[in-house]
Amino acid sequence: MDISVYFPIWNKLNINEQQALTTSAIERHFKKGELIHTGGDCMGLILVTSGQLRAYTVSKEGREITMYRLFERDMCLFSASCMMRSIQFDITISAEKDTDALLIPSEVYRKIMENSAPLANYTNEVMASRFSDVMWLIDQIMWKSFDKRLADFLLNEANVEGTNILKITHEEIGNHMGNPREVVTRMLKYFQTEGMVKLSRGTIEIADENKLMALTEE
Amino acid sequence: MDISVYFPIWNKLNINEQQALTTSAIERHFKKGELIHTGGDCMGLILVTSGQLRAYTVSKEGREITMYRLFERDMCLFSASCMMRSIQFDITISAEKDTDALLIPSEVYRKIMENSAPLANYTNEVMASRFSDVMWLIDQIMWKSFDKRLADFLLNEANVEGTNILKITHEEIGNHMGNPREVVTRMLKYFQTEGMVKLSRGTIEIADENKLMALTEE
Repeated sequence: MDISVYFPIWNKLNINEQQALTTSAIERHFKKGELIHTGGDCMGLILVTSGQLRAYTVSKEGREITMYRLFERDMCLFSASCMMRSIQFDITISAEKDTDALLIPSEVYRKIMENSAPLANYTNEVMASRFSDVMWLIDQIMWKSFDKRLADFLLNEANVEGTNILKITHEEIGNHMGNPREVVTRMLKYFQTEGMVKLSRGTIEIADENKLMALTEE
Repeated sequence: MDISVYFPIWNKLNINEQQALTTSAIERHFKKGELIHTGGDCMGLILVTSGQLRAYTVSKEGREITMYRLFERDMCLFSASCMMRSIQFDITISAEKDTDALLIPSEVYRKIMENSAPLANYTNEVMASRFSDVMWLIDQIMWKSFDKRLADFLLNEANVEGTNILKITHEEIGNHMGNPREVVTRMLKYFQTEGMVKLSRGTIEIADENKLMALTEE
């Protein structure tokens, strides 16, 4: 994919800046399940060409919660967190599907951004967008009961995957939502008795989409 | 206070940009307890000259949780959220103390930022810093038990106020932490039986700082 599609402000960059981005970008392939980035390293900006990445945090005890996902045409800033002094947190990124990406070295990007108001402002917009994701998450964690959050998660998964039969374990759901596996299993069993889902080994089938949706909207 | 102290990159702005910021800034005074900003309005950037502001979100049911605080020399971006399309969330701001501030109209700031890489990059740093605050908060909410969070909150309050006798209600604490008042009261009573605090009408005295600190570090 052409690198310019990631930057709506491409035409506001000068030739040298465009060339620096183009020539420094490296093609990378990540296998499904691969750990791509952990806090501390500063591998560069990830531009997703195809596939799906997951950005999450991990507690000291190893529990996880998903912050946001990155799809085709998304750009990940926090894998280049050394670009900004004030990014004082760690995000972990792994591939949820086989993923192709372009990688722009942090130092190349930072140098262009230092002098280019269009690129700096665009970076601002990308960060504001992630900030919005995280604020939505706080809203969910703080004020929404777990049954509503889980119903919302399942419907969103079905939408992302384009199928009502989800291949996902209860543990994986727990890692997305920041809850222990047992809590997920208990709620899924309750959903099953209510006819909203059908559970079988390794899959969760959404049996009554409307009922699940009604739950999220209560 | 001179407006240049808020911008470490002041010398990288040209004379016109400096003048636009200086002449457009309006002095404002906010009384303790005053509601300054709610989602939807776009009053401009708030530069705190003295005093203390609180930035928080409010649930549909009216429950609150503090995102971060703003002190002398801090700048608030989200009161000018219309500057950036991608800011898709509402933050409420109120004065925790009598506060003097400078207000820069959103449109003035946005126009300068559009052309000034230094200002755009500085704005990026400010946003990254708030982002770090919010990521810390998620970490607290998700993985820390309420007793540790409350101990941490009380010690932080004592530090901010410069006294071990805190004039704060249980309801106010609940609004900072996103918990119902009853939960706060119950835990404070437990702290009292453990000799960590002394409760009386309208005040909470930190009686054993070391013991509270030990609790947060467990």
